[in-house]
Amino acid sequence: MKILLVGASGTLGQAVRTVLEKQHEVVTASRSSGEYTVDLTDPSSVEVLYRAVGPVDAVACTAGAVPFRPFTDLTLDDFRAGVADKLLGQVELVRRGISAVAPGGSFTLVTGVLAQDPIRTGAVASTVNGALESFVRSAAIELPKAQRINAVSPTVLTESLSSYGEFFPGFEAVSAERAALGYVKSIDGAQTGQVYRVG
Amino acid sequence: MKILLVGASGTLGQAVRTVLEKQHEVVTASRSSGEYTVDLTDPSSVEVLYRAVGPVDAVACTAGAVPFRPFTDLTLDDFRAGVADKLLGQVELVRRGISAVAPGGSFTLVTGVLAQDPIRTGAVASTVNGALESFVRSAAIELPKAQRINAVSPTVLTESLSSYGEFFPGFEAVSAERAALGYVKSIDGAQTGQVYRVG
Repeated sequence: MKILLVGASGTLGQAVRTVLEKQHEVVTASRSSGEYTVDLTDPSSVEVLYRAVGPVDAVACTAGAVPFRPFTDLTLDDFRAGVADKLLGQVELVRRGISAVAPGGSFTLVTGVLAQDPIRTGAVASTVNGALESFVRSAAIELPKAQRINAVSPTVLTESLSSYGEFFPGFEAVSAERAALGYVKSIDGAQTGQVYRVG
Repeated sequence: MKILLVGASGTLGQAVRTVLEKQHEVVTASRSSGEYTVDLTDPSSVEVLYRAVGPVDAVACTAGAVPFRPFTDLTLDDFRAGVADKLLGQVELVRRGISAVAPGGSFTLVTGVLAQDPIRTGAVASTVNGALESFVRSAAIELPKAQRINAVSPTVLTESLSSYGEFFPGFEAVSAERAALGYVKSIDGAQTGQVYRVG
C-alpha cells in the first residue's frame, strides 16, 4: 500500500512510520519537515498536499496540537485554536482525502486518553479528543467507496514523560512503538468506526 | 434556587422549565424570546446576559443548533457552524458563568445520542456531542467554588418525530418530559462530570 502519514516527525509519527515501512510505501508530511509540508489549520494547504501526493491507499495522521492551561485561564481562543488544529485539521484531512483514497482504503486519526480520563489543564484536549471519537464513529457510516475510518487513542507516551509526565499522575505510560500498533490494526485490518485505546 | 434556563422556548426547554418551576425560580433566555434574549455564538451576548440576570444558583442549557447534511455534502463551514453554536456557545456559557454561579451551584448542558449512535447526515451533531461529553468530564475536575457540571444526552424526542423521525430509524423516542428529568438530577442532585443518557 501507499500510505500518506501526516505528523511523521513527531514522537508517535516516527514510530508509526517505522512500523508501517516494514510492509508499505510511506509518504511523509509534517508542519515543517518530511517529504511534504502541510498546515492542517489551513484547508488550502491540505488540498495542495493531496494534489502533490496523488492517489493513496491510506491516510494516517499523528498530528494535532492543543493548548494546555488551567480551566479558569483558558480563553475562547484557546478552545478555537485546539478545535481548528487537532479537530478540524483532521476533519479536513478526511473530507479532502475522500477523492484521493482508493476504494476500501482507510483514514486513521489520532485522539487521546483525555477524552475519558481528564487531567488538570487538559479541558481543550479532552473536548477535541471527545469530538474526534464521535466524528470517526459518524463518518464511518457515510464514507463512500467502502472507505474506512478509525482513531487511535494513546495514553501518555513513555517518550513524553520527561516533558510533561507530572501532569499525568498515576497514568501508566505506553511506548510510541506500542501505540503505533493501533495504526497497523486500522490500516491492515478491516474494521471501521473504531477507537483503538492504547495503554 | 434561582436557575437561568437558556433555550427555554424549545421543545426540551419548555419541558425543563415546567419541571424546574415546581420547586425553583426559573429565569428564561432564548435566541428570540423569553425574559432575556441571547445569541450563544456571540460571546459578548453571553456576557450581557449574565450581567442582566445577576447571581444564580444554576445554569441549564437546552439550546444549540447544528447543520444536518449527508457527509460528502458537509463543508468545513458546516463543522465550524456547529462547533460555534452548540459546542463553543455552551463552553462560553460555562466559562463566563463561573463568576455568576453560586458556590456549589451547577451547570447542565445538552448533548445527544448521536455521540454514540450516529445517523446519516449527523456527522456534525455527533462530533459536537462527543466534544461536549468530554468537555463536561474535564471541566468537572477544575471548576472553582465546588461548582458542578453535567450534561443531559437525550435520544430523539417524541415531540420531534413528525419533523425528522425518518432520520432516526429504529431509535426509541423519549418524551421531552422524561428527558427533562436529567436536568432535575443534575441540578438538585450532587453529582458532577456526568452525562445523563435519557432514552
